[in-house]
Amino acid sequence: MKNVKVVGAGGYGGVGIIELLLRHPEFKIECLVAATETGMKISDLYPHLTGFCDELIRTTDDPATQKPFDAVFFATPDGVGMQTAADELAKGARVVDYSGDFRFTTPEKYRAYANFIGKNPVHAAPELLPKTVYGLSELHAINESQTLAGNPGCFAVSCILGLAPAAAGKLINPKSVICDSKTGVSGAGKKPAATFHYPARYEQVNAYKLGGHQHMVEVEQELSQLAGETVQITLTTQVVPICRGIISCLYADLHETTSAAQLLDVYKAFYADKPFVRVFDNTATVGTAQVSGTNFCNLIVDVDERNNRLRVISHIDNLMKGQAGNALQNMNLMFGLDPMLGLNFPGRCP
Amino acid sequence: MKNVKVVGAGGYGGVGIIELLLRHPEFKIECLVAATETGMKISDLYPHLTGFCDELIRTTDDPATQKPFDAVFFATPDGVGMQTAADELAKGARVVDYSGDFRFTTPEKYRAYANFIGKNPVHAAPELLPKTVYGLSELHAINESQTLAGNPGCFAVSCILGLAPAAAGKLINPKSVICDSKTGVSGAGKKPAATFHYPARYEQVNAYKLGGHQHMVEVEQELSQLAGETVQITLTTQVVPICRGIISCLYADLHETTSAAQLLDVYKAFYADKPFVRVFDNTATVGTAQVSGTNFCNLIVDVDERNNRLRVISHIDNLMKGQAGNALQNMNLMFGLDPMLGLNFPGRCP
Amino acid sequence: MKNVKVVGAGGYGGVGIIELLLRHPEFKIECLVAATETGMKISDLYPHLTGFCDELIRTTDDPATQKPFDAVFFATPDGVGMQTAADELAKGARVVDYSGDFRFTTPEKYRAYANFIGKNPVHAAPELLPKTVYGLSELHAINESQTLAGNPGCFAVSCILGLAPAAAGKLINPKSVICDSKTGVSGAGKKPAATFHYPARYEQVNAYKLGGHQHMVEVEQELSQLAGETVQITLTTQVVPICRGIISCLYADLHETTSAAQLLDVYKAFYADKPFVRVFDNTATVGTAQVSGTNFCNLIVDVDERNNRLRVISHIDNLMKGQAGNALQNMNLMFGLDPMLGLNFPGRCP
Amino acid sequence: MKNVKVVGAGGYGGVGIIELLLRHPEFKIECLVAATETGMKISDLYPHLTGFCDELIRTTDDPATQKPFDAVFFATPDGVGMQTAADELAKGARVVDYSGDFRFTTPEKYRAYANFIGKNPVHAAPELLPKTVYGLSELHAINESQTLAGNPGCFAVSCILGLAPAAAGKLINPKSVICDSKTGVSGAGKKPAATFHYPARYEQVNAYKLGGHQHMVEVEQELSQLAGETVQITLTTQVVPICRGIISCLYADLHETTSAAQLLDVYKAFYADKPFVRVFDNTATVGTAQVSGTNFCNLIVDVDERNNRLRVISHIDNLMKGQAGNALQNMNLMFGLDPMLGLNFPGRCP
Repeated sequence: MKNVKVVGAGGYGGVGIIELLLRHPEFKIECLVAATETGMKISDLYPHLTGFCDELIRTTDDPATQKPFDAVFFATPDGVGMQTAADELAKGARVVDYSGDFRFTTPEKYRAYANFIGKNPVHAAPELLPKTVYGLSELHAINESQTLAGNPGCFAVSCILGLAPAAAGKLINPKSVICDSKTGVSGAGKKPAATFHYPARYEQVNAYKLGGHQHMVEVEQELSQLAGETVQITLTTQVVPICRGIISCLYADLHETTSAAQLLDVYKAFYADKPFVRVFDNTATVGTAQVSGTNFCNLIVDVDERNNRLRVISHIDNLMKGQAGNALQNMNLMFGLDPMLGLNFPGRCP
Repeated sequence: MKNVKVVGAGGYGGVGIIELLLRHPEFKIECLVAATETGMKISDLYPHLTGFCDELIRTTDDPATQKPFDAVFFATPDGVGMQTAADELAKGARVVDYSGDFRFTTPEKYRAYANFIGKNPVHAAPELLPKTVYGLSELHAINESQTLAGNPGCFAVSCILGLAPAAAGKLINPKSVICDSKTGVSGAGKKPAATFHYPARYEQVNAYKLGGHQHMVEVEQELSQLAGETVQITLTTQVVPICRGIISCLYADLHETTSAAQLLDVYKAFYADKPFVRVFDNTATVGTAQVSGTNFCNLIVDVDERNNRLRVISHIDNLMKGQAGNALQNMNLMFGLDPMLGLNFPGRCP
Repeated sequence: MKNVKVVGAGGYGGVGIIELLLRHPEFKIECLVAATETGMKISDLYPHLTGFCDELIRTTDDPATQKPFDAVFFATPDGVGMQTAADELAKGARVVDYSGDFRFTTPEKYRAYANFIGKNPVHAAPELLPKTVYGLSELHAINESQTLAGNPGCFAVSCILGLAPAAAGKLINPKSVICDSKTGVSGAGKKPAATFHYPARYEQVNAYKLGGHQHMVEVEQELSQLAGETVQITLTTQVVPICRGIISCLYADLHETTSAAQLLDVYKAFYADKPFVRVFDNTATVGTAQVSGTNFCNLIVDVDERNNRLRVISHIDNLMKGQAGNALQNMNLMFGLDPMLGLNFPGRCP
Repeated sequence: MKNVKVVGAGGYGGVGIIELLLRHPEFKIECLVAATETGMKISDLYPHLTGFCDELIRTTDDPATQKPFDAVFFATPDGVGMQTAADELAKGARVVDYSGDFRFTTPEKYRAYANFIGKNPVHAAPELLPKTVYGLSELHAINESQTLAGNPGCFAVSCILGLAPAAAGKLINPKSVICDSKTGVSGAGKKPAATFHYPARYEQVNAYKLGGHQHMVEVEQELSQLAGETVQITLTTQVVPICRGIISCLYADLHETTSAAQLLDVYKAFYADKPFVRVFDNTATVGTAQVSGTNFCNLIVDVDERNNRLRVISHIDNLMKGQAGNALQNMNLMFGLDPMLGLNFPGRCP
């Protein structure tokens, strides 16, 4: 059993990876760290864990957090992982970070992202950037040679997986891409706020961050790399009153006349050996509920043939394929394990 | 007081107009007709109406339904209103029909729509089509000279109002229009179905009718007329787990470099004297909840300036501005009344 | 038109009375006061009010709040109204206070309540207590002779109205009363908190304040007064994921063998001339939705005849009959107006 | 691996056991049977199962369903299991039936139940009744000697587990028991109906079956057996807009003055070796969400000391401990396996 430390254990991203690790045959939770609610048992904060994980939530400087771990998950916001990832790596850990800290492989790329979100543009550990990998293993080879991965943003996962085959096939006009993305409320994390207060939210759908959502940066980075030319998107992020789930409707003008059936073939071929991506035709009756609680991405592949426009509907669980599930998939790969280990289940219905 | 008959009284569209008429100073409900649940009191079907409207739901051939009425609402599906609207008009009524029966002014246009929805393409009352008006008074003059109006589709209202100023100003590429539209579940009516069963719906967002939603026809008709050229749209309809509300994210390529501020001015000018359309800039924090229960359309007007792409977020209550509220607005106008009569209220929060 | 000041305008209780007053023929909002969000327009805080009420939210010491008003609503928590109600009354206002400040007619009774909620047991304006009336006009005569009313607690309204006829008729064992009460989330007010955060709440039902909810005090006061003996209840308060609504299941042992039909007659007689209380038999299919947005209390009157136990299901909208609606009913009565003025509507469905 | 047949595979009870069996180390699904949707793959009906369980749904007379199975689950309504359970047993299967068919050990007891629900009072397989066990292993020893178990009703599980220690200890007045029980909507099954249509349900809480819910019969049977005297309850069933979960507030008069702490000790002792029952004191902040998706029953044990009245809040997931989870627990025991096998997980949050 590999021992695991989770930093940022008290948030949805932390409890998500804990729940997964509890049923994982190769990993064992040994240490929980957080910035708040320290000194409590995690099961007092999340009573459903009672009897399953009763570890203390520890401060960063607690001696018990200093020993070497095989695997460290930084379920933390931007700017945290970059402070101590080098230490963990030096002690021999493999590290997956949930934030933007390790999604970019050069200080320049990071600077652009940091400017976008109004953070210090100077990365605290630039020496690590050449070693990191963008943690979407459907596009990047992730294996035992890696020790550090930057887990992607949730919206980004849904958009990139939904557009990658078309971009890689150079089928679409790179300036015509529109991502209309709706997230469940858990995407905002566990901190209460006026817009996520139940009475204000249960009958509310709204767009937000029209000025620009930071996940745009990585979507453009990944699609441009696949397309071999600059892809520039319009991203509209919205919140819908579900708990878990992202549905992104993706549009782009097709260079050549393409039928829905032809595009479907392209997608099926692209994802033939990717176990977590399921490709459906445009008659499928699937929505966010059919991936809820799972690490799958369900794609409905369609062409508006009247307008020769690609239309793909991409569905993920923002806390799973959009966060903790994908993080575990990456960690599995970094240890040479089956990527589906601990993730090979269908969720529940209803 | 003008006396009113509501045909299709038992559905959401029927009860919606009843609720509005109960607080209207000039209209009085005298007759309710429906195809099902006849013989019941409407207040047995909808107990919240107890003491407010206890009228019987009558069959079409009930003698009490045959007398002349000042105003008749057909809150009925396609194909019903066209059967008897001529009779009502002959007896002196003013008529608003909720369906597609009177949204098209020529048999040819109706035929295209009917083919789209798989209905008999021959209109049952073609002689009425030259007399009807597309019931969106923000675009069409509606006044005492009219006796017949075809109330628009709910998605269509949200899309047309959100794009009309840009189309009328010839600001956008007519082949680049994308309407990403999400509706609350009440849009599907009151009939239970597997996809609207609570356990299957409360955590579900999904796209449907990818093959084409019939409201597309009227959106293209209206925008083409405004633009003076053929506008061809991509419409993606989705269901979100709210009860009331439509949010449409509307995209189109702008011909000339346009700032968000410039576009905002165009919209404000266009809707300056339209009391039910409110125009907001891209910092507004409004969503579907801010129009729920009201006849307002809230537009957030934005430009993705990186891509010179119009982005408008259009919000309505599908049962109000998308149905009964707009129907009453039309009827008010057809009687020379203030369009806001009985509709001049803000809804409630939360 | 009588001019109105609302203190505590920014909370749900404040916006609730504003929405009602906007459609009221005799009252006009002239002044809004609050402790937070002062200096904003109320319509910036609640955008659905845009164009309907764009008044500034003022601080208590703003000179514009000092002039005499005909009517003052204190939509404020415990301890606020008692500070300044005397001033308002001295300037000629009629006052309705939402909190516990004026629900008790002697300093001793107030002291018991204040101790229960951990507040200062010394009332700040004891000289007003003999003048106040418990603001439930179904039980207490409220008319132009009153100038001050203490609006009841929301749970209390549902429990008292559901048990009053049985208590008044001395039909039940006063030690056997159980009130199992569930409230919608709006009952907690607009302030975000972990337990009302959407992801934590949408699939959650839980009991809270098992140690004792303060509304118990007034339920016992009112029922004891009606019964002429001490009534002592068990009250279990719970939160359910609806926005508006309270459903209280009320149980008590009947002294004599009583059929459901007999008890129904007692209730119908008791509420014969009370326009906001509707009495249904045990076959009725009504729930919280059938009073949502309205000032009605729907009672299902039943007897578990196997156990000779009264069972009444009481439904109100906690923000209407449980708060702002009942406050307006009281104010109407204190001005000699029809109690239904501005409240005579059925709500909406769905 | 033991091979399994699920009869009634297409309902929530069927898909629930399928989901559990997919992660179970000792059972393997080999055959699915249902009355409707036969000929479809289960994964076409429930797309989240795609790739996990793609078995055909077969008719009862399909030859593939006739071979011997080690374990058979009847996830079927009343009256189905009794028709063929004898055949399955004769072929060597162990059988768990979800309905009332095998919850009663004599034809007389079954007759009382059948009359209550308006079914044929003559049991179709009376010879099996002496062999069956009421499938609540916290109260009845279930082990390899059994071959047939009648899985309890969902409400019954919550009420019985919440009252058993008090009944067994003869602490309560057997005529004073009140069960105020609220279920999530999934309790009504997957068949669409007007009252479970999303727009009619999302803001609705209502009581139903005031005339008597059939689960009352088994609650009284079990509690009377524990108490050694006739226990007669008042049961009020309600529906709340959550998907999964039952919360039952249970009340009874205590014979002797008892503190909350004393009662807590009784409950802790009673359930000391029952892994699926967790006992909390009255300060616990748990609700239905903390058992959602799991086989646990969380009990908050309280006494209203002012009235010397027991108050227990019992929480289960109606589809797990109230149905499929409990069925698997029983089957585990009937094969001599650890009862927690395949059920030893905490659920997810949020």
